[in-house]
Amino acid sequence: MADPYVHGYHPRESARLQDQAATLVDLLHCDTFYPPGSLVLEAGCGVGAQTLPLAKNSPGARIIALEISGSSAAEAERQVAAAGIANVRVLQGDIFRLPFRKASFDHLFVCFVLEHLPKPVEALSALREFIKPGGSITAIEGDHGSAYFHPDSLAARRAIGCQVTLQERAGGNAMIGRELYPLLVRAGFAEVSVSPRMVYADGSRPAMADGFTRKTFTAMIEGVRDAALAAGLMREREFDTGVADLYRTAEEDGVFCYTFFKATGKKG
Amino acid sequence: MADPYVHGYHPRESARLQDQAATLVDLLHCDTFYPPGSLVLEAGCGVGAQTLPLAKNSPGARIIALEISGSSAAEAERQVAAAGIANVRVLQGDIFRLPFRKASFDHLFVCFVLEHLPKPVEALSALREFIKPGGSITAIEGDHGSAYFHPDSLAARRAIGCQVTLQERAGGNAMIGRELYPLLVRAGFAEVSVSPRMVYADGSRPAMADGFTRKTFTAMIEGVRDAALAAGLMREREFDTGVADLYRTAEEDGVFCYTFFKATGKKG
Repeated sequence: MADPYVHGYHPRESARLQDQAATLVDLLHCDTFYPPGSLVLEAGCGVGAQTLPLAKNSPGARIIALEISGSSAAEAERQVAAAGIANVRVLQGDIFRLPFRKASFDHLFVCFVLEHLPKPVEALSALREFIKPGGSITAIEGDHGSAYFHPDSLAARRAIGCQVTLQERAGGNAMIGRELYPLLVRAGFAEVSVSPRMVYADGSRPAMADGFTRKTFTAMIEGVRDAALAAGLMREREFDTGVADLYRTAEEDGVFCYTFFKATGKKG
Repeated sequence: MADPYVHGYHPRESARLQDQAATLVDLLHCDTFYPPGSLVLEAGCGVGAQTLPLAKNSPGARIIALEISGSSAAEAERQVAAAGIANVRVLQGDIFRLPFRKASFDHLFVCFVLEHLPKPVEALSALREFIKPGGSITAIEGDHGSAYFHPDSLAARRAIGCQVTLQERAGGNAMIGRELYPLLVRAGFAEVSVSPRMVYADGSRPAMADGFTRKTFTAMIEGVRDAALAAGLMREREFDTGVADLYRTAEEDGVFCYTFFKATGKKG
């Protein structure tokens, strides 16, 4: 079995400094290429947000995108069709009961999935069974403990903490990014390598401040307002101050930092 | 006046992903080159730790390294001589009372200095006067709020907080890294650009775990033990637990993250 990395995946050559990435998609996916003819499983594709750049980067690979939610899978299928992408098949199914033979896939791709699982090592070990010998895994996760900003704000940090607590209560881990290396090693992967991808937005990068600080990160924190207040994690006024303070960091003299972690490994 | 950046400073071409940097020196200095014949002021050179890589990267530039402490300046001079470096002159002097004519320097280099100053914008504005029109500034600072690790530890975070508090009480700011962009803009610099340089150490990077996590960062936190305990910031036992927990993150299944910020700007 030839090593698919040799031809299809050159993180060092194609990776760029985080401050050169124009968008989040660029930052996370610019160096993931799968060789023509290879079969890729995207485990947990949601509405297909990562599936599209993945498929566009590797037009010769065949991608099976699995999603447990019927409505999300349907939306992913619509997105794929609307983009005119022909190398993706979206399936509804459970990543813990994969409807495939073991050792079927050349590559496994998991993005923003492990953060929601109570037992990520067990999940990775189970998924590993479906990779061919010599095949690869790519896992991408954020880490909410990596968020810091200027002006600093205790209320903003506490509002982020609400999201971390709620995710923890749901059995997940919003700070899993930093743990990818030991998790993949414990799950039995070889040649594990982690590349941090830092999002940095300041006044010279208004598109990143708008696209990430405002519309991605702060909007997400804003989205847990009702749940956080219902759980009594913060008082309404302080939570709203925290969200306002996060929006404040997207202004011209503000700065926002957040780091995603991209891990690769091989099934030896 | 020719733009010295055009020939001497290509951050995008020579910068590397943080996960490719073998050492901290590489991570921070690999993309700073000054053209032959240019005159560079390193304001606050300490014992010359940054002076040596700076001088080696730009053998044709003349570097004046200023340091207020007589003993540090003497040590810097010894280091420079021991390394056989001929293009550096170490001077003892106050960066706020520079013994030079204004607009004397092509480039200004300040590393790990602003974090100790009560009024960094005023300091930058004053130093700016000594740069020639069209000349540049390079400023590098860490940010202790950028430190996070696995396994996480409240005691470790509180021990780091002691260093932040002590530095604040001394008039400094140990979390200044994230603020470099707005600080340089407020000081009047043009074309300000900030490049975050993240140190990431996991089990696959034992040299970084040893050189940075253990011997640089944790040793620094350990170094404020007496001052932190004397100030009553933490109890002895918890502080020692925090330091032990930081050392723990340098083990094979541990992870440590920290970010330096490198800013460049121009005197328009």
